[in-house]
Amino acid sequence: MATGIKDKVAILGMGCSKFGERWDADAEDLIVEAYEECIADAGVETSQIDAAWFSTAIEEVHVGKSGLPLSIALRLPNIPVTRVENYCASGTESFRGAVYAVASGAADIALACGVEKLKDTGYGGLPQRSRGAVNSMYWANASAPGSFAQLATAYSTKHGVSMDEIKRAMAQISVKSHENGAKNPKAHLQKVIDIDTVLNAPMVAAPLGLFDCCGVSDGAAAAIVTTPEIARSMGKHDLVSVKALQLAVSNGQEASHNSWDGSYFITTRKAAERAYKEAGIDKPRDQISMFECHDCFSVTELVTMEDLYISEEGEAWQDVLDGFYNADGQVPCQIDGGLKCFGHPIGASGLRMLYEMYNQVLGRAGDRQLENPTIGMTHNLGGFPHQNVSSIAIVGKHGL
Amino acid sequence: MATGIKDKVAILGMGCSKFGERWDADAEDLIVEAYEECIADAGVETSQIDAAWFSTAIEEVHVGKSGLPLSIALRLPNIPVTRVENYCASGTESFRGAVYAVASGAADIALACGVEKLKDTGYGGLPQRSRGAVNSMYWANASAPGSFAQLATAYSTKHGVSMDEIKRAMAQISVKSHENGAKNPKAHLQKVIDIDTVLNAPMVAAPLGLFDCCGVSDGAAAAIVTTPEIARSMGKHDLVSVKALQLAVSNGQEASHNSWDGSYFITTRKAAERAYKEAGIDKPRDQISMFECHDCFSVTELVTMEDLYISEEGEAWQDVLDGFYNADGQVPCQIDGGLKCFGHPIGASGLRMLYEMYNQVLGRAGDRQLENPTIGMTHNLGGFPHQNVSSIAIVGKHGL
Repeated sequence: MATGIKDKVAILGMGCSKFGERWDADAEDLIVEAYEECIADAGVETSQIDAAWFSTAIEEVHVGKSGLPLSIALRLPNIPVTRVENYCASGTESFRGAVYAVASGAADIALACGVEKLKDTGYGGLPQRSRGAVNSMYWANASAPGSFAQLATAYSTKHGVSMDEIKRAMAQISVKSHENGAKNPKAHLQKVIDIDTVLNAPMVAAPLGLFDCCGVSDGAAAAIVTTPEIARSMGKHDLVSVKALQLAVSNGQEASHNSWDGSYFITTRKAAERAYKEAGIDKPRDQISMFECHDCFSVTELVTMEDLYISEEGEAWQDVLDGFYNADGQVPCQIDGGLKCFGHPIGASGLRMLYEMYNQVLGRAGDRQLENPTIGMTHNLGGFPHQNVSSIAIVGKHGL
Repeated sequence: MATGIKDKVAILGMGCSKFGERWDADAEDLIVEAYEECIADAGVETSQIDAAWFSTAIEEVHVGKSGLPLSIALRLPNIPVTRVENYCASGTESFRGAVYAVASGAADIALACGVEKLKDTGYGGLPQRSRGAVNSMYWANASAPGSFAQLATAYSTKHGVSMDEIKRAMAQISVKSHENGAKNPKAHLQKVIDIDTVLNAPMVAAPLGLFDCCGVSDGAAAAIVTTPEIARSMGKHDLVSVKALQLAVSNGQEASHNSWDGSYFITTRKAAERAYKEAGIDKPRDQISMFECHDCFSVTELVTMEDLYISEEGEAWQDVLDGFYNADGQVPCQIDGGLKCFGHPIGASGLRMLYEMYNQVLGRAGDRQLENPTIGMTHNLGGFPHQNVSSIAIVGKHGL
């Protein structure tokens, strides 16, 4: 592996719109809402931005293709604006594009912004995917809840954990996220729920009930990055810098070969191994202060806790029930409420997660503030368990 | 502007599929065709690739979203694969992503690959664009030939050049590209045409006739990049390195304000100024050995010759008629045949242009080989004259 990007790039500012059913706003409004907070936080003018990355996944239902929608919405000064799309990792990809541009010397100050406006479709859930490699001809009946539900069955079989225990651990995952999200004014859902409500909710795809599934929402988030030297020259001292950015994308192995048992994500494990190496982390359970993982479904969060090497294999369900991942636990997970409370405007989610890690490290997370967190991690998972893209970002106090 | 990326990254290898009506191949086949040539040229194994960028624009008609289609087609080793899309600049964007990753230290060896499979739609021309910033509600009647044709009228008015003269210069542009393309076995169209054929062809959108318009085709192209140090350690000596990568994306000015007269591209001028600065070029007419510009229509090429500061403003039509841009002229333009002969599989075109510049600098361009070219430039233009993305890449002998 190359030298990596640890501590080469600092976050100068971030912003995040209110997530939810934003009938009051179109995608451009959401971009502006996130950007205005971001640029005020960064303390720069629009004219100082050298280049921008724009993430949006299901562009056909709102802004359309290319980098133009971001440039037009923000009246950027005819700079490079690149659109990236990588399923649910899209938001993290725009951050990665901006970070690499700064680390390469191509740009001094770069913007990453992601948006998705999904509620205007007039129905729940995500729009039908387009055809292609995950082809409707092969998986016409592979719904998202249906395919992720199978993780629970495989996990139960492999580790000898009863479905009752798994169901209870999954319920606790959702209860925990709602406890956190209730303290977050930008979250879509801001109500505390109890474990019996989750356990007794209508079934969506067994064993996933209604509260095991994240919703769809509208939202945008943004980051401005630069070099630590420039950040300091602008008077910023408590720098949050990038420690690692890694992805792994399925190459067909899970979908076309029996070597995968269906109980975990090959990609997340590979991306995590590379990310820890890039960040210089060898004991993630001890060194990661907090993380946001891709909780599209509660069971995704459960197995991801192991795929990220925070819980031992086969033990995440017990860690969850022990409160290890609660706000007052050892490694809080989804301290902002997660996809469970924010919903999932695809192009924005990765940046929304980073926004919380950034604010936590700076001690600005309000009622949700943890005690002295130093390293935060985010994780996205796009696609299906058997074929997906997994991204990991690690940020934290500069120089640590 | 930041320090830029001049000579930080070298091209280790490139590949390009045959372009055309590839009824024999699907998009994955085209990817493999370009990749096999690329990796053999680079002299590396697939397992040595650290990260990849994948460009495809109208993914809804072939491979679908995300980086997965590239990873699956090539069985990449679960590495990061990022999809970029930026209208007709998409191919150059995948190259830019790979180059920045290497220059930033995030990757040692990175792959850029672009594809588009457009002929399977069953009709000519590009599929209908999705809605968004260039909105069907506003420009339902803005066809591509219609909007580009207006460049000729505006240019004629501004510079006092008669439409007959412009028409003749445009015809010569197409004649020149076909002369070059006839020597290129990978081009879609490989026939020489004469100026009378162009002048007398059926009108598409006055003054653009049939031979003033490029076609639609299928194709893929790929590049593998690394640091000059690694390239040398692998025994490569005549290095072609990246001198500049710049883009400019419209911010709404042309479409919503009368300050633009419609005779040129604001974005191309801004991108060119930045690219020359990054590459250390102050006399492009003397220092650029050859270039590929985005000749979606002959008039686009005409005004781009000025927007790239190769011809003086108002004089490109005369340079064209003087043979300045011919294969035996001072600065050959579209020496491989251009979009005019290759057609325009959107995600691949930018890389196809770089493939020719790379091979020319290495002296491997067969019957089209120019005498000792040192610096090659490529240019893409996506969108409409009044709202677009323009990208420029400059490559050349390392250290020059």
